[in-house]
Amino acid sequence: MRALIFDLDGTLVDTVYAHVLAWQLTLAEAGMPLDGWRIHRRIGMSGGLFTRALAREVGHPITPEQTRFLQDRHGELYRTLLPLRRPLPGAVALLRRLRESGVPHGIATSGRRPDIDASLEALELAPDMIVVDRQSVAHAKPAPDLFLECQRQMGIPAEECYVVGDAVWDLLAARRAHMIGIGLLTGGYGQDELLVAGAYQVFRDAAELDEALEELGIPPGISN
Amino acid sequence: MRALIFDLDGTLVDTVYAHVLAWQLTLAEAGMPLDGWRIHRRIGMSGGLFTRALAREVGHPITPEQTRFLQDRHGELYRTLLPLRRPLPGAVALLRRLRESGVPHGIATSGRRPDIDASLEALELAPDMIVVDRQSVAHAKPAPDLFLECQRQMGIPAEECYVVGDAVWDLLAARRAHMIGIGLLTGGYGQDELLVAGAYQVFRDAAELDEALEELGIPPGISN
Repeated sequence: MRALIFDLDGTLVDTVYAHVLAWQLTLAEAGMPLDGWRIHRRIGMSGGLFTRALAREVGHPITPEQTRFLQDRHGELYRTLLPLRRPLPGAVALLRRLRESGVPHGIATSGRRPDIDASLEALELAPDMIVVDRQSVAHAKPAPDLFLECQRQMGIPAEECYVVGDAVWDLLAARRAHMIGIGLLTGGYGQDELLVAGAYQVFRDAAELDEALEELGIPPGISN
Repeated sequence: MRALIFDLDGTLVDTVYAHVLAWQLTLAEAGMPLDGWRIHRRIGMSGGLFTRALAREVGHPITPEQTRFLQDRHGELYRTLLPLRRPLPGAVALLRRLRESGVPHGIATSGRRPDIDASLEALELAPDMIVVDRQSVAHAKPAPDLFLECQRQMGIPAEECYVVGDAVWDLLAARRAHMIGIGLLTGGYGQDELLVAGAYQVFRDAAELDEALEELGIPPGISN
Protein backbone atom coordinates (compact mmCIF):
# COMPACT_ATOMS: atom_id res chain seq x y z
CA MET A 1 0.00 0.00 0.00
CA ARG A 2 1.55 3.24 -1.13
CA ALA A 3 -1.01 6.06 -1.03
CA LEU A 4 -3.88 7.59 0.96
CA ILE A 5 -6.99 9.29 -0.40
CA PHE A 6 -8.95 11.35 2.11
CA ASP A 7 -12.55 12.40 2.24
CA LEU A 8 -12.93 16.01 3.44
CA ASP A 9 -16.12 16.76 5.43
CA GLY A 10 -16.25 14.80 8.69
CA THR A 11 -12.87 13.20 7.97
CA LEU A 12 -10.44 16.12 7.97
CA VAL A 13 -12.71 19.03 9.03
CA ASP A 14 -15.45 19.12 11.66
CA THR A 15 -18.36 20.08 9.43
CA VAL A 16 -20.89 17.22 9.44
CA TYR A 17 -23.28 18.63 12.04
CA ALA A 18 -23.42 22.04 10.35
CA HIS A 19 -24.17 20.28 7.04
CA VAL A 20 -27.00 18.32 8.67
CA LEU A 21 -28.61 21.35 10.29
CA ALA A 22 -28.23 23.39 7.08
CA TRP A 23 -30.13 20.66 5.19
CA GLN A 24 -32.75 20.40 7.95
CA LEU A 25 -33.43 24.13 7.75
CA THR A 26 -33.32 24.20 3.93
CA LEU A 27 -35.79 21.36 3.56
CA ALA A 28 -38.11 22.67 6.27
CA GLU A 29 -38.18 26.08 4.53
CA ALA A 30 -39.04 24.33 1.26
CA GLY A 31 -41.97 22.54 2.89
CA MET A 32 -40.40 19.05 2.72
CA PRO A 33 -38.92 18.45 6.17
CA LEU A 34 -36.70 15.40 6.65
CA ASP A 35 -35.48 13.88 9.95
CA GLY A 36 -32.01 14.99 11.02
CA TRP A 37 -30.71 11.44 11.44
CA ARG A 38 -31.78 10.52 7.89
CA ILE A 39 -29.95 13.56 6.55
CA HIS A 40 -26.90 12.68 8.66
CA ARG A 41 -26.71 9.21 7.15
CA ARG A 42 -26.76 10.73 3.65
CA ILE A 43 -24.11 13.40 4.10
CA GLY A 44 -21.25 12.72 1.69
CA MET A 45 -23.35 11.04 -1.00
CA SER A 46 -23.81 12.81 -4.31
CA GLY A 47 -26.33 15.67 -4.35
CA GLY A 48 -28.20 13.96 -7.20
CA LEU A 49 -28.68 10.74 -5.23
CA PHE A 50 -29.61 12.76 -2.13
CA THR A 51 -32.31 14.53 -4.12
CA ARG A 52 -33.67 11.28 -5.53
CA ALA A 53 -33.84 9.83 -2.01
CA LEU A 54 -35.56 13.01 -0.86
CA ALA A 55 -38.10 12.79 -3.68
CA ARG A 56 -38.97 9.27 -2.56
CA GLU A 57 -39.43 10.42 1.04
CA VAL A 58 -41.62 13.41 0.17
CA GLY A 59 -43.55 11.40 -2.41
CA HIS A 60 -43.22 13.66 -5.45
CA PRO A 61 -40.46 14.32 -8.02
CA ILE A 62 -38.05 17.22 -7.55
CA THR A 63 -37.12 19.17 -10.69
CA PRO A 64 -33.50 19.98 -11.63
CA GLU A 65 -34.29 23.66 -10.96
CA GLN A 66 -35.55 22.83 -7.45
CA THR A 67 -32.45 20.68 -6.86
CA ARG A 68 -30.17 23.55 -7.81
CA PHE A 69 -32.17 25.95 -5.64
CA LEU A 70 -32.02 23.60 -2.63
CA GLN A 71 -28.28 23.01 -3.07
CA ASP A 72 -27.59 26.73 -3.29
CA ARG A 73 -29.74 27.47 -0.24
CA HIS A 74 -28.04 24.68 1.70
CA GLY A 75 -24.62 26.06 0.80
CA GLU A 76 -25.64 29.56 1.86
CA LEU A 77 -27.00 28.39 5.24
CA TYR A 78 -24.02 26.08 5.78
CA ARG A 79 -21.51 28.88 5.23
CA THR A 80 -23.52 31.12 7.59
CA LEU A 81 -23.85 28.47 10.31
CA LEU A 82 -20.15 27.54 10.24
CA PRO A 83 -17.99 30.37 8.92
CA LEU A 84 -14.98 29.00 10.83
CA ARG A 85 -13.92 25.49 9.87
CA ARG A 86 -12.01 23.48 12.42
CA PRO A 87 -9.61 20.74 11.33
CA LEU A 88 -10.31 17.50 13.18
CA PRO A 89 -7.66 16.27 15.67
CA GLY A 90 -4.49 15.19 13.92
CA ALA A 91 -5.62 16.12 10.41
CA VAL A 92 -3.17 18.96 9.77
CA ALA A 93 -0.24 17.06 11.31
CA LEU A 94 -1.02 13.87 9.37
CA LEU A 95 -1.17 15.67 6.02
CA ARG A 96 2.10 17.45 6.86
CA ARG A 97 3.80 14.17 7.80
CA LEU A 98 2.68 12.48 4.59
CA ARG A 99 3.98 15.41 2.56
CA GLU A 100 7.33 15.43 4.37
CA SER A 101 7.68 11.64 4.04
CA GLY A 102 6.87 11.74 0.33
CA VAL A 103 3.83 9.46 0.72
CA PRO A 104 1.40 10.16 -2.16
CA HIS A 105 -1.95 11.45 -0.91
CA GLY A 106 -4.92 13.50 -2.01
CA ILE A 107 -8.41 14.71 -1.08
CA ALA A 108 -11.53 13.51 -2.90
CA THR A 109 -14.82 15.09 -1.85
CA SER A 110 -18.47 15.13 -2.94
CA GLY A 111 -18.45 18.76 -1.77
CA ARG A 112 -18.30 21.68 -4.14
CA ARG A 113 -16.85 25.16 -4.21
CA PRO A 114 -17.45 27.61 -2.61
CA ASP A 115 -18.72 25.41 0.25
CA ILE A 116 -15.38 23.62 0.64
CA ASP A 117 -13.06 26.64 0.24
CA ALA A 118 -12.86 27.55 3.94
CA SER A 119 -12.31 23.89 4.87
CA LEU A 120 -9.39 23.48 2.47
CA GLU A 121 -7.87 26.70 3.77
CA ALA A 122 -8.13 25.52 7.38
CA LEU A 123 -6.07 22.43 6.51
CA GLU A 124 -3.00 24.48 5.52
CA LEU A 125 -2.49 22.43 2.37
CA ALA A 126 0.60 22.61 0.18
CA PRO A 127 -0.03 24.55 -3.05
CA ASP A 128 0.37 21.38 -5.13
CA MET A 129 -1.98 19.25 -3.00
CA ILE A 130 -4.26 17.07 -5.12
CA VAL A 131 -7.91 17.99 -4.47
CA VAL A 132 -10.65 16.33 -6.50
CA ASP A 133 -14.06 17.89 -5.93
CA ARG A 134 -17.59 17.36 -7.20
CA GLN A 135 -17.05 19.45 -10.31
CA SER A 136 -14.09 17.27 -11.43
CA VAL A 137 -16.13 14.12 -12.16
CA ALA A 138 -19.45 12.99 -13.63
CA HIS A 139 -20.65 11.03 -10.57
CA ALA A 140 -19.95 11.61 -6.89
CA LYS A 141 -19.88 8.97 -4.11
CA PRO A 142 -20.88 6.20 -3.81
CA ALA A 143 -19.68 6.04 -7.45
CA PRO A 144 -15.92 5.37 -7.54
CA ASP A 145 -15.17 8.30 -9.90
CA LEU A 146 -13.80 10.76 -7.30
CA PHE A 147 -11.35 8.22 -5.89
CA LEU A 148 -10.32 6.97 -9.35
CA GLU A 149 -9.64 10.52 -10.54
CA CYS A 150 -7.55 11.19 -7.41
CA GLN A 151 -5.61 7.96 -7.96
CA ARG A 152 -5.05 8.87 -11.62
CA GLN A 153 -3.65 12.27 -10.60
CA MET A 154 -1.35 10.61 -8.03
CA GLY A 155 -0.22 8.04 -10.59
CA ILE A 156 -0.60 5.09 -8.18
CA PRO A 157 -2.56 1.90 -9.01
CA ALA A 158 -5.96 1.70 -7.28
CA GLU A 159 -4.99 -1.54 -5.52
CA GLU A 160 -2.25 0.33 -3.66
CA CYS A 161 -4.50 3.11 -2.33
CA TYR A 162 -6.26 3.39 1.02
CA VAL A 163 -9.39 5.51 1.21
CA VAL A 164 -9.94 7.26 4.55
CA GLY A 165 -13.50 8.38 5.22
CA ASP A 166 -16.17 8.90 7.89
CA ALA A 167 -19.23 7.71 5.95
CA VAL A 168 -20.50 4.47 4.47
CA TRP A 169 -20.48 6.25 1.07
CA ASP A 170 -16.70 6.51 1.21
CA LEU A 171 -16.42 2.82 2.02
CA LEU A 172 -18.80 1.73 -0.73
CA ALA A 173 -17.05 3.94 -3.30
CA ALA A 174 -13.68 2.58 -2.14
CA ARG A 175 -14.80 -1.00 -2.73
CA ARG A 176 -16.09 -0.09 -6.16
CA ALA A 177 -12.69 1.52 -6.92
CA HIS A 178 -10.81 -1.62 -5.73
CA MET A 179 -9.28 0.35 -2.86
CA ILE A 180 -9.20 -0.51 0.84
CA GLY A 181 -11.42 1.62 3.07
CA ILE A 182 -10.50 2.91 6.50
CA GLY A 183 -13.21 4.44 8.71
CA LEU A 184 -12.98 7.36 11.13
CA LEU A 185 -15.55 8.01 13.87
CA THR A 186 -15.35 11.79 13.40
CA GLY A 187 -18.41 11.90 11.14
CA GLY A 188 -20.73 10.55 13.83
CA TYR A 189 -21.36 7.04 12.48
CA GLY A 190 -21.10 4.15 14.91
CA GLN A 191 -18.07 1.87 14.59
CA ASP A 192 -20.21 -1.12 13.57
CA GLU A 193 -21.86 0.80 10.75
CA LEU A 194 -18.43 1.48 9.23
CA LEU A 195 -17.17 -2.07 9.71
CA VAL A 196 -20.33 -3.54 8.20
CA ALA A 197 -19.88 -1.21 5.20
CA GLY A 198 -16.46 -2.74 4.62
CA ALA A 199 -13.93 -0.68 6.58
CA TYR A 200 -10.70 -2.68 7.01
CA GLN A 201 -10.12 -0.79 10.26
CA VAL A 202 -11.83 2.02 12.15
CA PHE A 203 -9.90 4.72 13.98
CA ARG A 204 -11.18 7.46 16.25
CA ASP A 205 -9.75 10.28 14.13
CA ALA A 206 -6.78 11.29 11.97
CA ALA A 207 -4.59 11.49 15.09
CA GLU A 208 -5.18 7.83 15.90
CA LEU A 209 -4.69 6.87 12.25
CA ASP A 210 -1.40 8.76 12.25
CA GLU A 211 -0.13 6.56 15.10
CA ALA A 212 -1.09 3.42 13.18
CA LEU A 213 0.38 4.28 9.76
CA GLU A 214 3.23 1.80 10.06
CA GLU A 215 0.80 -1.02 10.86
CA LEU A 216 -0.95 -0.16 7.62
CA GLY A 217 2.31 -0.47 5.71
CA ILE A 218 2.65 3.29 5.09
CA PRO A 219 5.16 4.29 3.97
CA PRO A 220 5.81 0.99 2.21
CA GLY A 221 8.82 -0.98 3.35
CA ILE A 222 8.66 0.08 6.99
CA SER A 223 6.34 -2.58 8.36
CA ASN A 224 6.73 -5.36 5.80
CA MET B 1 -45.65 -3.92 31.12
CA ARG B 2 -48.08 -1.11 31.72
CA ALA B 3 -46.45 2.25 31.07
CA LEU B 4 -44.09 4.16 28.77
CA ILE B 5 -41.63 6.89 29.74
CA PHE B 6 -40.27 8.95 26.85
CA ASP B 7 -37.13 10.94 26.45
CA LEU B 8 -37.76 14.27 24.64
CA ASP B 9 -34.87 15.53 22.46
CA GLY B 10 -34.10 13.17 19.58
CA THR B 11 -36.90 10.81 20.66
CA LEU B 12 -40.07 12.87 20.23
CA VAL B 13 -38.70 16.07 18.61
CA ASP B 14 -36.03 16.48 15.94
CA THR B 15 -33.58 18.60 17.90
CA VAL B 16 -30.33 16.63 18.30
CA TYR B 17 -28.39 18.18 15.44
CA ALA B 18 -29.26 21.73 16.51
CA HIS B 19 -28.12 20.86 20.05
CA VAL B 20 -24.82 19.53 18.72
CA LEU B 21 -24.09 22.56 16.55
CA ALA B 22 -25.12 24.94 19.38
CA TRP B 23 -22.58 23.23 21.65
CA GLN B 24 -19.92 23.25 18.94
CA LEU B 25 -20.33 27.00 18.46
CA THR B 26 -20.56 27.69 22.21
CA LEU B 27 -17.39 25.78 23.01
CA ALA B 28 -15.46 27.22 20.05
CA GLU B 29 -16.42 30.74 21.18
CA ALA B 30 -15.18 29.91 24.67
CA GLY B 31 -11.82 28.75 23.30
CA MET B 32 -12.34 25.06 24.12
CA PRO B 33 -13.49 23.47 20.86
CA LEU B 34 -14.74 19.88 20.96
CA ASP B 35 -15.39 17.53 18.02
CA GLY B 36 -19.01 17.41 16.85
CA TRP B 37 -19.22 13.62 17.08
CA ARG B 38 -18.03 13.67 20.71
CA ILE B 39 -20.69 16.25 21.56
CA HIS B 40 -23.30 14.19 19.70
CA ARG B 41 -22.53 11.12 21.79
CA ARG B 42 -23.00 13.18 24.98
CA ILE B 43 -26.29 14.86 24.13
CA GLY B 44 -28.89 13.82 26.70
CA MET B 45 -26.47 13.29 29.57
CA SER B 46 -26.62 15.68 32.52
CA GLY B 47 -25.01 19.08 31.99
CA GLY B 48 -22.81 18.51 35.03
CA LEU B 49 -21.38 15.28 33.65
CA PHE B 50 -21.00 16.90 30.24
CA THR B 51 -18.96 19.68 31.81
CA ARG B 52 -16.76 17.24 33.71
CA ALA B 53 -16.11 15.31 30.50
CA LEU B 54 -15.34 18.60 28.77
CA ALA B 55 -12.91 19.61 31.52
CA ARG B 56 -11.05 16.34 31.01
CA GLU B 57 -10.84 16.93 27.25
CA VAL B 58 -9.62 20.53 27.54
CA GLY B 59 -7.26 19.63 30.36
CA HIS B 60 -8.31 22.18 32.98
CA PRO B 61 -11.19 22.47 35.48
CA ILE B 62 -14.31 24.44 34.58
CA THR B 63 -15.85 26.54 37.35
CA PRO B 64 -19.56 26.45 38.24
CA GLU B 65 -19.85 30.02 36.92
CA GLN B 66 -18.31 28.99 33.58
CA THR B 67 -20.65 25.98 33.44
CA ARG B 68 -23.68 28.21 33.94
CA PHE B 69 -22.40 30.65 31.35
CA LEU B 70 -21.79 27.88 28.79
CA GLN B 71 -25.21 26.34 29.43
CA ASP B 72 -26.95 29.70 29.02
CA ARG B 73 -25.02 30.49 25.83
CA HIS B 74 -25.80 27.03 24.45
CA GLY B 75 -29.50 27.52 25.18
CA GLU B 76 -29.49 30.91 23.52
CA LEU B 77 -27.77 29.62 20.35
CA TYR B 78 -29.96 26.51 20.30
CA ARG B 79 -33.17 28.53 20.42
CA THR B 80 -31.82 30.80 17.65
CA LEU B 81 -30.68 27.92 15.42
CA LEU B 82 -33.95 26.00 15.76
CA PRO B 83 -36.87 28.28 16.63
CA LEU B 84 -39.31 25.81 15.06
CA ARG B 85 -39.36 22.35 16.66
CA ARG B 86 -40.56 19.49 14.52
CA PRO B 87 -42.10 16.41 16.14
CA LEU B 88 -40.45 13.23 14.85
CA PRO B 89 -42.59 10.89 12.69
CA GLY B 90 -45.37 9.27 14.67
CA ALA B 91 -44.63 11.07 17.95
CA VAL B 92 -47.81 13.16 18.17
CA ALA B 93 -50.03 10.27 17.05
CA LEU B 94 -48.42 7.83 19.48
CA LEU B 95 -48.88 10.14 22.46
CA ARG B 96 -52.49 10.74 21.43
CA ARG B 97 -53.16 7.01 21.10
CA LEU B 98 -51.68 6.28 24.54
CA ARG B 99 -53.81 9.02 26.07
CA GLU B 100 -56.99 7.77 24.38
CA SER B 101 -56.25 4.15 25.37
CA GLY B 102 -55.60 5.13 28.98
CA VAL B 103 -52.01 3.79 28.90
CA PRO B 104 -49.95 5.63 31.54
CA HIS B 105 -47.08 7.58 30.00
CA GLY B 106 -44.85 10.55 30.65
CA ILE B 107 -41.83 12.52 29.43
CA ALA B 108 -38.54 12.60 31.35
CA THR B 109 -35.81 14.84 29.94
CA SER B 110 -32.36 16.09 30.92
CA GLY B 111 -33.39 19.32 29.14
CA ARG B 112 -34.41 22.43 30.96
CA ARG B 113 -36.81 25.30 30.48
CA PRO B 114 -36.90 27.52 28.47
CA ASP B 115 -34.97 25.31 25.99
CA ILE B 116 -37.65 22.60 26.00
CA ASP B 117 -40.75 24.86 25.94
CA ALA B 118 -41.11 25.01 22.14
CA SER B 119 -40.56 21.24 21.88
CA LEU B 120 -43.31 20.46 24.41
CA GLU B 121 -45.67 22.83 22.60
CA ALA B 122 -44.99 21.16 19.24
CA LEU B 123 -46.10 17.81 20.69
CA GLU B 124 -49.66 19.05 21.40
CA LEU B 125 -49.62 17.51 24.87
CA ALA B 126 -52.69 17.18 27.07
CA PRO B 127 -52.73 19.75 29.91
CA ASP B 128 -52.26 16.99 32.52
CA MET B 129 -49.35 15.30 30.71
CA ILE B 130 -46.58 14.27 33.12
CA VAL B 131 -43.33 16.05 32.21
CA VAL B 132 -40.27 15.63 34.44
CA ASP B 133 -37.43 17.96 33.50
CA ARG B 134 -33.92 18.70 34.75
CA GLN B 135 -35.12 21.04 37.47
CA SER B 136 -37.35 18.34 39.04
CA VAL B 137 -34.52 16.08 40.25
CA ALA B 138 -31.06 16.21 41.79
CA HIS B 139 -29.29 14.18 39.08
CA ALA B 140 -30.03 13.89 35.37
CA LYS B 141 -29.27 10.92 33.11
CA PRO B 142 -27.51 8.52 33.24
CA ALA B 143 -28.71 8.66 36.89
CA PRO B 144 -32.12 6.97 37.19
CA ASP B 145 -33.72 9.93 39.02
CA LEU B 146 -35.68 11.40 36.09
CA PHE B 147 -37.28 8.06 35.21
CA LEU B 148 -37.98 7.20 38.85
CA GLU B 149 -39.68 10.55 39.43
CA CYS B 150 -41.79 10.06 36.30
CA GLN B 151 -42.73 6.54 37.44
CA ARG B 152 -43.62 7.87 40.90
CA GLN B 153 -45.92 10.49 39.36
CA MET B 154 -47.58 7.84 37.18
CA GLY B 155 -47.99 5.53 40.18
CA ILE B 156 -46.71 2.45 38.30
CA PRO B 157 -43.95 0.13 39.60
CA ALA B 158 -40.60 0.62 37.85
CA GLU B 159 -40.55 -3.02 36.69
CA GLU B 160 -43.68 -2.33 34.61
CA CYS B 161 -42.28 0.69 32.76
CA TYR B 162 -40.60 0.87 29.38
CA VAL B 163 -38.19 3.73 28.73
CA VAL B 164 -38.10 4.96 25.12
CA GLY B 165 -35.00 6.92 24.17
CA ASP B 166 -32.52 7.70 21.40
CA ALA B 167 -29.30 7.80 23.43
CA VAL B 168 -27.18 5.36 25.42
CA TRP B 169 -27.79 7.61 28.46
CA ASP B 170 -31.49 6.76 28.37
CA LEU B 171 -30.69 3.06 28.21
CA LEU B 172 -28.15 3.18 31.04
CA ALA B 173 -30.52 5.21 33.24
CA ALA B 174 -33.34 2.77 32.42
CA ARG B 175 -31.25 -0.19 33.59
CA ARG B 176 -30.36 1.63 36.78
CA ALA B 177 -34.09 2.31 37.34
CA HIS B 178 -34.96 -1.40 36.74
CA MET B 179 -36.93 -0.46 33.63
CA ILE B 180 -36.67 -1.92 30.13
CA GLY B 181 -35.11 0.33 27.53
CA ILE B 182 -36.27 0.70 23.94
CA GLY B 183 -34.06 2.51 21.44
CA LEU B 184 -35.07 4.78 18.55
CA LEU B 185 -32.71 5.66 15.66
CA THR B 186 -34.00 9.24 15.48
CA GLY B 187 -31.15 10.61 17.62
CA GLY B 188 -28.48 9.52 15.14
CA TYR B 189 -26.91 6.63 17.06
CA GLY B 190 -26.27 3.42 15.16
CA GLN B 191 -28.54 0.46 15.96
CA ASP B 192 -25.66 -1.57 17.41
CA GLU B 193 -24.69 1.19 19.81
CA LEU B 194 -28.21 1.13 21.27
CA LEU B 195 -28.39 -2.68 21.46
CA VAL B 196 -24.99 -2.90 23.12
CA ALA B 197 -26.15 -0.32 25.67
CA GLY B 198 -29.00 -2.63 26.60
CA ALA B 199 -31.96 -1.75 24.38
CA TYR B 200 -34.48 -4.60 24.40
CA GLN B 201 -35.51 -3.56 20.89
CA VAL B 202 -34.61 -0.75 18.49
CA PHE B 203 -37.20 0.94 16.28
CA ARG B 204 -36.70 3.49 13.53
CA ASP B 205 -38.92 6.10 15.17
CA ALA B 206 -42.10 6.58 17.21
CA ALA B 207 -44.18 5.61 14.16
CA GLU B 208 -42.56 2.19 13.98
CA LEU B 209 -42.84 1.77 17.76
CA ASP B 210 -46.54 2.61 17.52
CA GLU B 211 -47.05 -0.31 15.13
CA ALA B 212 -45.28 -2.68 17.54
CA LEU B 213 -47.01 -1.68 20.80
CA GLU B 214 -49.03 -4.88 20.98
CA GLU B 215 -45.87 -6.99 20.63
CA LEU B 216 -44.52 -5.13 23.63
CA GLY B 217 -47.62 -6.01 25.65
CA ILE B 218 -49.02 -2.46 25.60
CA PRO B 219 -51.76 -2.02 26.61
CA PRO B 220 -51.50 -5.02 28.92
CA GLY B 221 -53.86 -7.88 28.20
CA ILE B 222 -53.84 -7.48 24.42
CA SER B 223 -50.86 -9.62 23.54
CA ASN B 224 -50.56 -11.87 26.59
